Order: sequence, then C-alpha cells, then structure tokens
Amino acid sequence: MLQGHQSWRFDNRPVIIGAAAVVGPEEGKGPLAPEFDRVHGDTLLEQKSWEKAEKMLLEEAGKLAIEKSGLTKEDIHFYVGGDLMNQIISNTFAVRTLGIPYIGVFGACSTSMESLALASMLVNSGSAKHAMAGTCSHNCTAEKQFRYPTEYGSQKPPTAQFTVTGAGASVISSNGTGPVVTKATIGRVVDMGIKDPFNMGAAMAPAAVDTIEAHFRDFGIEPGHYDMIVTGDLASVGLDIANELFVRHGIPMDQTTFTDCGLMIYDRTKQQVQAGGSGCGCSAAVTYGHLIKRVQSGELKRILVVATGALLSPLSFQQGESIPCIAHAVAIEQGKEG
Amino acid sequence: MLQGHQSWRFDNRPVIIGAAAVVGPEEGKGPLAPEFDRVHGDTLLEQKSWEKAEKMLLEEAGKLAIEKSGLTKEDIHFYVGGDLMNQIISNTFAVRTLGIPYIGVFGACSTSMESLALASMLVNSGSAKHAMAGTCSHNCTAEKQFRYPTEYGSQKPPTAQFTVTGAGASVISSNGTGPVVTKATIGRVVDMGIKDPFNMGAAMAPAAVDTIEAHFRDFGIEPGHYDMIVTGDLASVGLDIANELFVRHGIPMDQTTFTDCGLMIYDRTKQQVQAGGSGCGCSAAVTYGHLIKRVQSGELKRILVVATGALLSPLSFQQGESIPCIAHAVAIEQGKEG
Repeated sequence: MLQGHQSWRFDNRPVIIGAAAVVGPEEGKGPLAPEFDRVHGDTLLEQKSWEKAEKMLLEEAGKLAIEKSGLTKEDIHFYVGGDLMNQIISNTFAVRTLGIPYIGVFGACSTSMESLALASMLVNSGSAKHAMAGTCSHNCTAEKQFRYPTEYGSQKPPTAQFTVTGAGASVISSNGTGPVVTKATIGRVVDMGIKDPFNMGAAMAPAAVDTIEAHFRDFGIEPGHYDMIVTGDLASVGLDIANELFVRHGIPMDQTTFTDCGLMIYDRTKQQVQAGGSGCGCSAAVTYGHLIKRVQSGELKRILVVATGALLSPLSFQQGESIPCIAHAVAIEQGKEG
Repeated sequence: MLQGHQSWRFDNRPVIIGAAAVVGPEEGKGPLAPEFDRVHGDTLLEQKSWEKAEKMLLEEAGKLAIEKSGLTKEDIHFYVGGDLMNQIISNTFAVRTLGIPYIGVFGACSTSMESLALASMLVNSGSAKHAMAGTCSHNCTAEKQFRYPTEYGSQKPPTAQFTVTGAGASVISSNGTGPVVTKATIGRVVDMGIKDPFNMGAAMAPAAVDTIEAHFRDFGIEPGHYDMIVTGDLASVGLDIANELFVRHGIPMDQTTFTDCGLMIYDRTKQQVQAGGSGCGCSAAVTYGHLIKRVQSGELKRILVVATGALLSPLSFQQGESIPCIAHAVAIEQGKEG
C-alpha cells in the first residue's frame, strides 16, 4: 500500500522464509565468514570465466534459499533480481537455470533492496504467493567492466571500494516463519556532480540521505524507530559524508546504530579493501547472511537496510557525465510465528 | 492479483491516462509516422552523442506523456523503466531530469511491457496512485554496443533487424479516461541454444510462444479472446517461427490478427530494415503511438502486446553463450469513461 510519496507499507506481513549468502575467498577472511552459507576458496569456482563464476554464486544462493524455505522452485511465482554486469547477465543466466518467471531489475548496488522491496510488494499485494529476490557481484568482473582489468594491478586511491564477490537471495512468502518485511522506500536519482568512479561513497551518500529522510517523512518516524540503520555500500568515506549531511539537515541519527554493510564484511585493519566493500553482493550477503539472523534472534527488533547504487556506466563516465546515484530502503522486523 | 502461475489480473482498472511516442528520421518515413507525437529529422537531436540523443528521446516522451495525462511530475509516485544500454543509462539520466522515484528494470526489448505490467500492477494494488512506464532505444547506440560501430558500414544478413530510434512512455492511473490495462503475464527465460546476434527473431520466437501459451493457460482463454495479438519484436523471421510453433502445439492462432510491432513500424518494401524493426523503442512507440489509439477508438476492443527481449550481452556472446530470451505480455482494453 502506498505510504506518503514514495514508500510502501506492508500490512500483510510478507515473510522472509528462506535466505542464503554465498561468497568468495576474501569475504571468507572477513568477520562475517562464519555466517555465510557457503564460502568459496577461489574466485573462479572451477568455471572458465569470472562471469560464469559470478552466475554460479547466484545460482547457489538461489538454490540454498529455496531449499531453506521448504519450497520447490516450481512454487515460486516470480524472481526479481539484477546485477552490475552489462544487461544483468549473471541474473539472467542463473534464472535460466532456476526456470522461474523473471522480473529483471537494475539499480547497481541498490539492486539488493530494490529486488527485496519489489518481491515483498508482490507478496503483500497478492500479486504472488511466493516471490524471490536475488543479486550478486564479483570483484574481478566488476573491476574489469568498470575500471581496469585486475591483471593490470593498477593502484587505487584510499577512497576506492573493494567489490564483494558474493551473492544473496531470499524467498518471500505470504505466510511462514521468519523476519517480516514491513516497509520500503523507493529512491530518486540524486546526482551531486561527482565524476570519480574511485570515490563512489561520496557520490552515493547524498542519495542514501535523500531516501532515509524520505522514509522518515513518509512514515512520520524518527531515526530512533530502528535498532539499526545500515547503508550498503557507502564504506568509510561515504558514511562520514552521510553523517555530516544528517547533522546539517538536523536529523538526529545515532552514530552507534548507523552503520554500513561495506564496513561490516571486511576487517579493514587486516584486509586491503581501501574504504570498504561495495557491489550488489555486499549488502545482499550482509543482509541475508548476517543481519536477518540478528533480527530473527531478537537481538535487533527492527532494522532499516538502505542499499545505495551508483548508476554510471563506463560509457557515461567516458562521455564526461557525472555519477547519478540512488538508494532504496527496506525495513525488516522480528517475525512472530506465522 | 495473482492469476494462475505467472500472471496478474487487474480488477481495479488501471488506466493509461497519457502516453507519448517520440521517434527518429527512419521511423518518420514509416507507415505509422503521422501517429507519433514527435518525429526528429536527424538521429543526434542536436546532442553531442547518440547516447545523449537516446536519453533526450525518452525525456521528451516522458514529458509529453505527463503533459497529456494532465498531471505534473510531482504527482507521479514511481517511474518504471529501462533500456538496452549498459546499466540502462538512458533511463537513469532521463529520470534524473524528471525527478520521479525510480524503479530501474531490464528485459532488453521486452522492457516496454515489463515496465507497463509493473506500473499497472503498482496502481492496481494501491502501491501507487499514478505510475509511469517508459523505455527507449537508438539505432546507433545499439549497433555500436551490440554489433559493430555504424561507421564500419558492415553488411547484414537478411535475418538481422533494424533497431528503432524511438521512445515511448505512459502514465497509468487509478482513475481517469483511457485504455485500461486488464491483464499481464511475466515470462520465463527461454533459451533454445541460438547464438547468432544477427538472428534475434529466431532466438526470441520460442519465448513469445511460451508466454502467450502461459497467458492463455493462466486465464483459461483462447487466441480468439483478443482482436489482435502483437509481438514486439520478432520481425518476419521470428513471426514465421512463432506461427509454426503454434501450429505444432495445436494453438489456433488467427494469422490475420497475429502480427508484430517490428513489421508495423517500417515499410519493408521501401526501407532497408532487413527482417524488420527491433529495440525497446519499437514496441513502445508502436504501442503508445499507434495501438492504444486503435483500442481507445473502439476499432480494437481488446489487444495483447507481447514484447520480446534477447537478454544477451556482447560479453556473454563473446564467451560463447547462447541467447537467453524472454517475453512479457500485457492486455489492453477499451476504457469506458472513468
């Protein structure tokens, strides 16, 4: 149901009845490693290309999420997902295997919450009984496509982010047990004129702030409504900027509970990930592997995940365009027995 | 509301209250030229690049559709759209101008009906009061990205299709006057192993057939239910294959009312467009510029538009993958006074 200008209120309690996160080796060295469903020891997953490996990550996450939901893929009415690859091929090829009717979406790294928001809306509105959301990214496919082939070994500035090799998928159902999706806010395109693809955090921060403020406005709530508000993926540079913007706008964000998926997935004191993690797989793996477990256990009663996306293409960058950004927010709450 | 396995039934009568189609010079020489809202005399639209021109086409179509709807852009809750460009930049940059909360989608040329289906579902379910759907394509940007730069002047086989330079957009509302969107079917990924990007029609035909048959099954209807069933864009090669498949499957398609947007937009006896038109802008311009006028006038009481998409990327093609395809179907009926 529409709430305010750009949000949905889910009164029919769409439930995340199954979710899974599958990651690569670097993510397997980070602090969340024990929580992921599968950690691969190499980035190729025995495939012939990184692109095929990225597709495999999502296929595995999708199959595990379905398995954990207790359903079969034939039970799922729609798959909603996308990724960073040109023409979202990782999702398309993974869904070809799954055989589920397919709503392809694109929001760069915000795709994790764009897909979860849409899948929850489908279930909440009776447009699906069971829907699936999924996304993925791969460090080597993203670097190759958006910056330089990794073989170059080009140096990176400290503002750069490290694309997560990982996938996350979830099954949303009209009934069952699990964390409940209660609200979502769809973002606008925000572009503050930043043109540096090695500083995505700075580009995306204003979009995150715009969506979070719209969420508060649409629902008439304040930051304290949530036990945790987590962006994905502003990393250290972007999160600082977001904090500054909230101060300037007079929004009382609690800095102890406002954090970022890109800062949670790696140990920046030991891992060379510059400002932190990024990529569709970052917020997806952190949300589905880690956050929803803390919600389900009751440690966190209510969280807001605000996935941010930098919507540039290599070509728009080459043609001198600035980086348009977006953020989509989804509220997840502890579920009671369904 | 979910209907059958992969369809939506729209009982709350989402209405197309405004729609517009803006096209380039070649489309302006075709038989539908008088019906388009704007025909540009050159492919650059006074922009510095074809990509910027493609964005302009969509911006113009979007603004005209809003104007015709009698609303302002502030009234529109969500924009749903995508295009063929890597990271759907044409839509992103156009929506940056419009400033409407943005649900980016990707279904290659099926995006026209994917976006219309989703926008209608949002309105039907009360998730939006007014939503917008849009898409676009440009002959020169698509050729450059998917095949060869047009400057090469490379020869094309007769199975190739000519990407439409054009954009279409529509405003869907919970009330008002106009054609009504009554049903939609979301397609599955269908891949018959075809690898030739110069024969998209053959690759996409089985996906169109799969979705049309699912639509009939989900609603318990037969081809005669519609005054016209129109695919977009199988062109001559693909439409013949689709007809053959229907005969083999025992589905009584009426060949006088089963046609294709790629065959309607150009005059193949006079224009060098090989098998016919293609691109997101083809089915969008034909639907929003031409078909809905015939529905609204009552000449056609009920039509099914089945937009097909070839979900390949240049990279998946180079890596030897076959072409996964999809088709999404939307039923549009004559509206009574709202």
